[in-house]
Amino acid sequence: MTHMEQRMDLLTLGVPDVAAARRFYVDKLGWKVTFEVPDDIVFLQANHGLLIALWDAAALAADATDRGDGSPEAPPISLAQVVATEDAVRAACDAAVAAGATLLKEPQHADFGGFHCYVADPSGFRWEIATNPGWHADDQGQVTLGPI
Amino acid sequence: MTHMEQRMDLLTLGVPDVAAARRFYVDKLGWKVTFEVPDDIVFLQANHGLLIALWDAAALAADATDRGDGSPEAPPISLAQVVATEDAVRAACDAAVAAGATLLKEPQHADFGGFHCYVADPSGFRWEIATNPGWHADDQGQVTLGPI
Repeated sequence: MTHMEQRMDLLTLGVPDVAAARRFYVDKLGWKVTFEVPDDIVFLQANHGLLIALWDAAALAADATDRGDGSPEAPPISLAQVVATEDAVRAACDAAVAAGATLLKEPQHADFGGFHCYVADPSGFRWEIATNPGWHADDQGQVTLGPI
Repeated sequence: MTHMEQRMDLLTLGVPDVAAARRFYVDKLGWKVTFEVPDDIVFLQANHGLLIALWDAAALAADATDRGDGSPEAPPISLAQVVATEDAVRAACDAAVAAGATLLKEPQHADFGGFHCYVADPSGFRWEIATNPGWHADDQGQVTLGPI
């Protein structure tokens, strides 16, 4: 049975300038960084079990399609769900498409080391379903994230 | 001291058709509704202490400015933080603006019964800071939301 869980673990904001976005949240507001790849992506814990990522909008758009050429009409964000297995990625992707989502990127190995797919809901909002062996949330909801 | 907490409690997706968005998430995917105002807005629990709202994109844009005429260049979403007092709304709003955010809507009483402001981060993403007397999250992170 295919199934897409009712859960968002990560909200990626596609920004024009990651350094500028980082300055606002980290340097000015004082938010703590969970994990970052310098000059690439910054992860900030935003609630129990939830991270916000600041990532280049063009990189996000390119990552989100099989063609790698983005879908410029999509809002510059991605909601994401972390699941345990590649089969769970495939099942959630199938469930979303069966429910009316558009497949943007077939389930496949991802540059960051996990396995993922992207779909767009009927309003055009992207969801990424992914395994991420570097992701761990403890009982208090604190997320740690590291290179895989 | 002004301060904007490192926390998102609500992600509002501005959609072209709330009924169509609801059909996808609720009727097709089987996600449970936390609270809804028929033909207006649907709230879905998306993690511990976190809701996703499906709301008309034009209504969101209009709500997010003092002028009520929206800011069409902003992505059709709003990140939101629920705080306890009107002073906390003012303090977080001041902190965001001092950090480089743009004030979109001065702290004021909101149509839904709370007290709120909107700012845009340097990338253009909207944050709403709001009191919401109808919002309650229990120790397990289950959110209940009702009319005020």
